[in-house]
Amino acid sequence: MAFTFSPDHVDRAREAAAASLAEGGVPIGAALVVDGELVAVGHNQRVQHGDPTAHGEIDCLRNAGRMRSYADAVMITTLAPCAMCTGAIIQFGIRRVVVGEAQTFSGELGLLRSRGVDVVVLDDPACRDLMEQFQQRYPEVWAEDIGEVL
Amino acid sequence: MAFTFSPDHVDRAREAAAASLAEGGVPIGAALVVDGELVAVGHNQRVQHGDPTAHGEIDCLRNAGRMRSYADAVMITTLAPCAMCTGAIIQFGIRRVVVGEAQTFSGELGLLRSRGVDVVVLDDPACRDLMEQFQQRYPEVWAEDIGEVL
Repeated sequence: MAFTFSPDHVDRAREAAAASLAEGGVPIGAALVVDGELVAVGHNQRVQHGDPTAHGEIDCLRNAGRMRSYADAVMITTLAPCAMCTGAIIQFGIRRVVVGEAQTFSGELGLLRSRGVDVVVLDDPACRDLMEQFQQRYPEVWAEDIGEVL
Repeated sequence: MAFTFSPDHVDRAREAAAASLAEGGVPIGAALVVDGELVAVGHNQRVQHGDPTAHGEIDCLRNAGRMRSYADAVMITTLAPCAMCTGAIIQFGIRRVVVGEAQTFSGELGLLRSRGVDVVVLDDPACRDLMEQFQQRYPEVWAEDIGEVL
């Protein structure tokens, strides 16, 4: 199975991130695509649901529900995955990840690749702009989300 | 801060695992302890909530809610953490993990230790017995939970 995703799928993840920012939340969105079809979208829910585990990728996987296999899935995420989301991708057997940008947070791309996951980084200015707006407006929430103490 | 937890805290995690098995769910429980005080308990909710991300440790961290720091926290879990839960422990900055047993699933203890997390494995027969009962009764659910296709 090829690395099948479309710009529309990236748009959906970015729209989820933007919707989260509009709610005062962390603007990280994700989309799960299987065989070229969108299965689920999600975004970080730390602020909205008071749930520190609901990063964009985790929320998306939760919204997708139970699946027998992720072997043909592509995870699209607007920001480089943190250690938790990287671990989820590895554990679930997702083999392809599309990252909107990795400049505002470098994540665990090395760990992903070391476990055989194909990673594409888009360096998308719109994804970066959302994160820069958020980091400037809510530095304490951002620190909390990545496990740092200001 | 010392590696502070008590046998009572391990009992709470094991009781959560047993409660999950009684519901037909995956019998993995977790407890979060800060400064010797129990903050939250959780257990795997894949079957109960149809949520593949709700492993015991994730459910426990979700139940604990937002926290500024996990530097003084101990995560107790009845089974060796998978890659997702290992990543969560690393990302959240939890530095001490107590594992009930690592025989029925070896998890990612090496990754945890490579990131500086202190890990104690209890080799608890009661935790192992819960997993062995589950693996025999529900092999397909167990395969799904660890990302394997039977």
